[in-house]
Amino acid sequence: MKRHYFDWAATSDPGMARGGEDSIFANPSSLHEEGRYAKDALESARIKCAAILGVKTETLYFTGGGTDANAIMLHSLLLHALSLKNYNGEILYSAIEHPSIQENCLLLNKLNIPTGIIGAEKDGRVSCENFSTTLQKHPKARFAAIMGVNNETGAVMELGKLVKLAREREKVTKLPIHFHADMVQAIGKIPFSLSEVDLDSASFSSHKLGGAFGVGLLYLKKPINALLQGGKQEKGIRAGTENVNGAVNLAGVLEERAKNETVVSEYNKAKERFSYLIKGLEKFERYYPIPKDRVKDDKRFSPWILQAAFKGIPGEVMLRALDKHGIAVSTGSACSSASKERKVLSAMGLNNTEQMEGFRISQGWTTDMEDMDALLNAIEKILSLL
Amino acid sequence: MKRHYFDWAATSDPGMARGGEDSIFANPSSLHEEGRYAKDALESARIKCAAILGVKTETLYFTGGGTDANAIMLHSLLLHALSLKNYNGEILYSAIEHPSIQENCLLLNKLNIPTGIIGAEKDGRVSCENFSTTLQKHPKARFAAIMGVNNETGAVMELGKLVKLAREREKVTKLPIHFHADMVQAIGKIPFSLSEVDLDSASFSSHKLGGAFGVGLLYLKKPINALLQGGKQEKGIRAGTENVNGAVNLAGVLEERAKNETVVSEYNKAKERFSYLIKGLEKFERYYPIPKDRVKDDKRFSPWILQAAFKGIPGEVMLRALDKHGIAVSTGSACSSASKERKVLSAMGLNNTEQMEGFRISQGWTTDMEDMDALLNAIEKILSLL
Repeated sequence: MKRHYFDWAATSDPGMARGGEDSIFANPSSLHEEGRYAKDALESARIKCAAILGVKTETLYFTGGGTDANAIMLHSLLLHALSLKNYNGEILYSAIEHPSIQENCLLLNKLNIPTGIIGAEKDGRVSCENFSTTLQKHPKARFAAIMGVNNETGAVMELGKLVKLAREREKVTKLPIHFHADMVQAIGKIPFSLSEVDLDSASFSSHKLGGAFGVGLLYLKKPINALLQGGKQEKGIRAGTENVNGAVNLAGVLEERAKNETVVSEYNKAKERFSYLIKGLEKFERYYPIPKDRVKDDKRFSPWILQAAFKGIPGEVMLRALDKHGIAVSTGSACSSASKERKVLSAMGLNNTEQMEGFRISQGWTTDMEDMDALLNAIEKILSLL
Repeated sequence: MKRHYFDWAATSDPGMARGGEDSIFANPSSLHEEGRYAKDALESARIKCAAILGVKTETLYFTGGGTDANAIMLHSLLLHALSLKNYNGEILYSAIEHPSIQENCLLLNKLNIPTGIIGAEKDGRVSCENFSTTLQKHPKARFAAIMGVNNETGAVMELGKLVKLAREREKVTKLPIHFHADMVQAIGKIPFSLSEVDLDSASFSSHKLGGAFGVGLLYLKKPINALLQGGKQEKGIRAGTENVNGAVNLAGVLEERAKNETVVSEYNKAKERFSYLIKGLEKFERYYPIPKDRVKDDKRFSPWILQAAFKGIPGEVMLRALDKHGIAVSTGSACSSASKERKVLSAMGLNNTEQMEGFRISQGWTTDMEDMDALLNAIEKILSLL
């Protein structure tokens, strides 16, 4: 039957989907055929994502990205604290968190919500000892954010053990501790299973995995009360018309990139390429990795991210020199590139000079040995000039 | 020069853009060539949007959608109130606002921030008299949200006059009143110029105008302090990796749909089609428009949105019956379809039965007279059965 679309105020009809084509244009909240089709596509995407992450479908919420997912979680704590007159819980977060965690926690602190920082070791990881001590120092801890893989150094946290510590602590304090993990740099990169680690929440981003900008996922073991109000989309966790095409794209990306066997196989290939790269870098006298004791095949680190440095050369100078040689690297995280502070490296005990010398080399699944050689050759040329 | 991308932790390289192709994949916060290219694309998009809206480029911020834009504004008020110990300003919003305004204001109220409601007239509009009275009743008003075009009834507000009232009031109270307008149903539909109405902020959505889901714009005459923290993207107003492709798409959509001459011409065509439709509807004895005195060519209403009703037939029954006849209409707004309440119609003084009988017919630029005939024929068939 020819369809006639009279729901342009819900969302516009771009014209191409009128005859029942495959493209999705309708608002999933609309009750008509077009809306139901969009809703079905959205829910199928959720089912696919849940299958790959190994969690129940109803625990996944589509968001506007990784930062959005982290903020939804942290803002719900603000709402919770403001709703209770005598809230005195403490919010813990590690010193190596992404700005979307650190900056929102700093804001909560400014708004008189007690926060505490879980220090990092010299290797850029959060140790069980440190987390355990921090938990004891903060007997009212109700929330802890520790990321899966650090975005600047590639440090991989032992989330399973860390979560267990929180669970043991709960038995002592008789207070539940919500454990949140930013998994943006872990998904599709590091083998892990959400079903094996007892997280309360986790955040994911699509564009870090080859998907579209502006879409992410929030995993919530139990629903929360979100600060953001509006329509009841995503069961009230993330108001606003759902980005259906973004969600469908994300599900496809996860299927292609985040299945366990794919992750393991790509992880091994990445490790091989990074071993070659690190071996090559170690031949340069002025090279040092951050942390300094990172070696090739180092299991403490993601084989997708390396924080490297050259004595006497600021990271930003190296970035610009490499750029001119056709190589794109970065300093800090893109999300903190506007800031001169290097919080993560500072938390690892690096001095100012070292912090400024660090730059990030991060690879992906289409990176090959030719890229590695190009990078090493460019560095050799630059070092001969600087 | 062949480029080698080593910034996958900032954003993944989808593979197709390595050789300097046109597609945008890099993170605009990255400092290398790919990042600068993405940044340039983002800023060009902003310049285009500003040119069409007639405002300065630096007053526009890309957001995750219309709801996101409204929420950023309202959450900044929450932050402002929480940051000041003795905040006693009042937040006013009209009774016909979109859920993303109403629900967030209700939350602010629950969190002890004084709010006041600007009532609507029977025709679903906010009158100058009513706004003026409300301002006087709330001498501490610091913020007022009145939308440009209502999403359920198409009621068009006289924003120019309403803003002037606020400016006059400021002179009396010596307190600035921030005037926010949700322009989601106005942009590309109703001739208006941001430069002619002295708004402090306004929100826009891309998907309502044929663009992608998950992108919007927030216009801010002056910067605000946003609650959402993270990277310093969008000058700190909206943290999170910018949706570059969404922004570029939005700029294209505005160029195609929101130029003044296009809007005027499409407005006139829409009016013609709606006159034909309304004339047809008026032939059915059980038909009544909402509000009841809405006539064809009624300048108080957008020619893109009609709230219609048939005596004795719940709107949802009509929606389902029309859907089976190949016609997509809606009840309420998509953003409130999960709710049984019809706040906007209630604010207009409609009784419960009338509220439930209303359904929304909204058209767009590809709607034609054949669509109108199909709709009228379907209604005729349905009425003969119900």
